[in-house]
Amino acid sequence: MTLQTKTELVSGHCFQQPICFSGQQLMWAGESAQDWMARSEGSACYVYDMAVARRQVEQLRSQLPDSFDIFYAVKANPNPEVLSALEAVVDGVDVASIGELERAMAAGFSADQVSFAGPAKLVDEIERTLALGGHLSVESLIEMQRVISWANHNQQQVAVGVRLNPQFQLKASGMHMGGGAQPFGIDEEQFADLVALVKASPLVSISGLHIYAGSQCLQLDALVEQFRQSLLCFKRLSEEHQLTVTKLNFGGGIGVPYFPNNKPVDLVEYGQAIRSIVNEHQAFVVDKSIILELGRYIMAEAGVYLCQVTDVKSSRGQLFAMVNGGMHHHLANSGNLGQLLKKNYPIVVANKMASEAAERVTICGPLCTPLDVLARQLEVPKLDLGDIIAIFQSGAYGLTASPNQFLSHNSALEWVV
Amino acid sequence: MTLQTKTELVSGHCFQQPICFSGQQLMWAGESAQDWMARSEGSACYVYDMAVARRQVEQLRSQLPDSFDIFYAVKANPNPEVLSALEAVVDGVDVASIGELERAMAAGFSADQVSFAGPAKLVDEIERTLALGGHLSVESLIEMQRVISWANHNQQQVAVGVRLNPQFQLKASGMHMGGGAQPFGIDEEQFADLVALVKASPLVSISGLHIYAGSQCLQLDALVEQFRQSLLCFKRLSEEHQLTVTKLNFGGGIGVPYFPNNKPVDLVEYGQAIRSIVNEHQAFVVDKSIILELGRYIMAEAGVYLCQVTDVKSSRGQLFAMVNGGMHHHLANSGNLGQLLKKNYPIVVANKMASEAAERVTICGPLCTPLDVLARQLEVPKLDLGDIIAIFQSGAYGLTASPNQFLSHNSALEWVV
Repeated sequence: MTLQTKTELVSGHCFQQPICFSGQQLMWAGESAQDWMARSEGSACYVYDMAVARRQVEQLRSQLPDSFDIFYAVKANPNPEVLSALEAVVDGVDVASIGELERAMAAGFSADQVSFAGPAKLVDEIERTLALGGHLSVESLIEMQRVISWANHNQQQVAVGVRLNPQFQLKASGMHMGGGAQPFGIDEEQFADLVALVKASPLVSISGLHIYAGSQCLQLDALVEQFRQSLLCFKRLSEEHQLTVTKLNFGGGIGVPYFPNNKPVDLVEYGQAIRSIVNEHQAFVVDKSIILELGRYIMAEAGVYLCQVTDVKSSRGQLFAMVNGGMHHHLANSGNLGQLLKKNYPIVVANKMASEAAERVTICGPLCTPLDVLARQLEVPKLDLGDIIAIFQSGAYGLTASPNQFLSHNSALEWVV
Repeated sequence: MTLQTKTELVSGHCFQQPICFSGQQLMWAGESAQDWMARSEGSACYVYDMAVARRQVEQLRSQLPDSFDIFYAVKANPNPEVLSALEAVVDGVDVASIGELERAMAAGFSADQVSFAGPAKLVDEIERTLALGGHLSVESLIEMQRVISWANHNQQQVAVGVRLNPQFQLKASGMHMGGGAQPFGIDEEQFADLVALVKASPLVSISGLHIYAGSQCLQLDALVEQFRQSLLCFKRLSEEHQLTVTKLNFGGGIGVPYFPNNKPVDLVEYGQAIRSIVNEHQAFVVDKSIILELGRYIMAEAGVYLCQVTDVKSSRGQLFAMVNGGMHHHLANSGNLGQLLKKNYPIVVANKMASEAAERVTICGPLCTPLDVLARQLEVPKLDLGDIIAIFQSGAYGLTASPNQFLSHNSALEWVV
C-alpha cells in the first residue's frame, strides 16, 4: 500500500500534521475511512488518532523549557479512552466540573494532577475537590469564603490558586475570557480584597495564580504578549502581597487552523519567544511550576468525523447532499457554537481522495432545520450515495459539545486508537 | 393564598397565558418555584405545565373548522410524559426520525396518527415506518424510489405524502424551510418527475401533500398568505396530475413571543382568515383532512426553566450572577441556536416576583465559555445567593436541543404536570 500525504487540501485548509490517503481512500488511525464506516455499521462516527494528539503534545513540549507542565483541558474531549491515552503524555488535567474531575481520576490521573477552574463552581464541587486534594482555581470572593469555611470546618490546611481577570485581552482570539468586565476569575484590581480574606484565615493560603485570557488564537505575537503580560501580572501581585506562589497557570489559547488561509502557530518561534521571557524573569520563575492548559490544540486535529451520503438532490439550480450525520453530532462544525458566520471546516469526500472536484454541493444533515448544514457550496468530486464525508479538526468540542438528543436520532459512535 | 396574574412582565415580554404569582413566589403548575427547586434538590430543572399546552391546543382548535387536525411536532419536546399528556388532545404527531416515531407510539399514538417528515431519512427509517403503517412525507426522488422498492419487495400497497418545496417563502419567519433552493422537500417544478415515477408503480400512490414553509412567525398576514399559497399549490398540483389526495399538511409556523415587543398571533383573526380561504375552496377541501403540525406553539409557553444563583460578583462596574444552569441545558436561550444576536428570553427572579428592579445583572452559567450567558443586562431586584431564576417560553426546543454532556455537568431534571 502506497501512502500519499498532503498538508494542504484542495480548499486551502492547512494542517499541522499531514493527511494520508491510499488510492482513493482517506487513511485515518491505520484504517481506511471505508473500514471505519463499515465498523460503525452505518452510523456516523468520530475516530480519534491518539498518535496525532501525542505528537501535538510532544511538538509543543520540545520547544518549551523543561520546567513547563502541559495540562489537558478535559472539556475539549472527555472520552474515557482519550483521557487514558493522554494520561501517559501530559502532566495533568484542567477540569471544569466535578464530573470532569471524576472522569480524569477514573482515567488514571491523580488528584494532585488536577486543576479545577470554572466560573460557577457549586459548593459541593468545591468541597469534594478539596477533600480529594485537587487544586482549585478560585474565581470569586464568595468561592474563597467557601474554601475558608471548608478548611475551618475540617481543620485542614488548604492551598488554592486564584484565577485572575487581567486588565489585558488576548488579541486575535476566537473567544475572550479575560480583560474588561468578565464572569471569569476575579479582577486583578480586587485581588487585594481576596488576599485580605485569606490572610485572616490561618488554614488557607494562595499557592497558585491563573490567567486564562482567551482561546483559538493563531497569532504568534498575541500569544507571546499574553504570556508576557500574564507573567508580569503574576509577578506584580506576588511581590505586592508577599505571596509564596508555586504554580503559575498561563491558560491556553493556541489555536488550530479550522478555516481556509488559517495557518498554525509556528511552535519553534513560539518556544523561542517564551524561553526568552522566562529567562528575563528567571529569579521569579525558578522555583515555580509553569502550566499551560490546552484542549483544542491537543485534540482537534486528532479527530475526524465521518458520515455517509444518504441522498443527493437538486433544488432550483443548487445541489444538496444529505448525510446520516449533522449538527446533533457536531454543533461546532455547523457554525452554531460561537461563530458569527458559518464557514466550512476542512471537509473531503473520504473515498474519492484522488478525484478532481467536479461539482459544488451543500451538505445537510437530517434535522428539520436550516441550521443543520455540514458544508456550504463545497467543491467535491461527483457525489454518489454511500460516499463518505470526512470533517477534519473534529477531535475537540465535537460530540459532547453537541445536542445529541435533538430529534431523537442515534448518537455518533466514537473510536479511539 | 391569593394568586396574582400578569400577562405583561416588567421587561415588556408578552405571554399568551397569564403568569401567576403568590406574594413573592412564581407559581407554576400548581407549586411555587421554590418548591420545584426543593424537589429538584439543587439541580436546575424544567417544569412543564400540560394544562397550558392543552389550552394552547384548545384555543387554536376553537378557531379552526372542525375538519382540521392538529398534530404535535415531537421534535419540540419528546419527553415521554409530555407525549402521553398530549395524546389526549392532539390528533396526531409529526415525527422526524424513527426514534421520535417509537417515542410517539410508546406514548399511545397509533401508527396511523404518525406523519414522518425529514430531509434525510435513512432507508431503515423509511422501511420501518412503512411496515408499521405510518404516513411518510417523501422529500426526494430517491426517497420515492426507496418507497417503491419496499412496496415491490413486500408486494404491498403503499400510499405516501410528498413534501413540496414551494416557490413562495413564509415571510417574517424565524427560519425558512421553503422557497428558493432547499434541502427540504421536492421543488414543485420537479413534482411531475415524481408523479411519473409513482404512476409507473402500481403499488404506490400519492395520498398526501405537505408544505412546511417556515417557523416562528408572529405576523398574521404572512401566516394566512402561507396557508393560501399552500392550498393553491396543493390544488394546482392535484388537478394537474389528477391525484386523489386525502391529506393536506400545511405545516406549522405559528410563533411564540420570545422577545420584548413580540406579540402573539391573534388566533381569532387567524381562524377567520383560514375559514374564509377554506370556504372559498370548499369543493377541493371537502373530503380531505387538513393538518397543522405545531411544536413550539403548543409547548413553548408550557415550560419554564428554573435554576439558582450560586455566586454574585462584580467585574469592572458590571454585575454578574452565576447560576447552576446554562447553555448545556438550554442552548436556544443562550442565543446559540440560530439567532444572530443574543436577546433575552422572558426571565424573572422567581422568588422576588413582587419586588422592584434594583440592579442590572448579566446571568452566566458554569461553562468556561463566554457563550454561556442566560441573560444580558437584565433588570432585577437585588440578587442574593439561592435566588431562583425562571426562564419562560422554555417548553419547546429546550433540553433535547442542548449539548447536555458539555463539560460533564449534571443534566437538568424535567417535571411534567
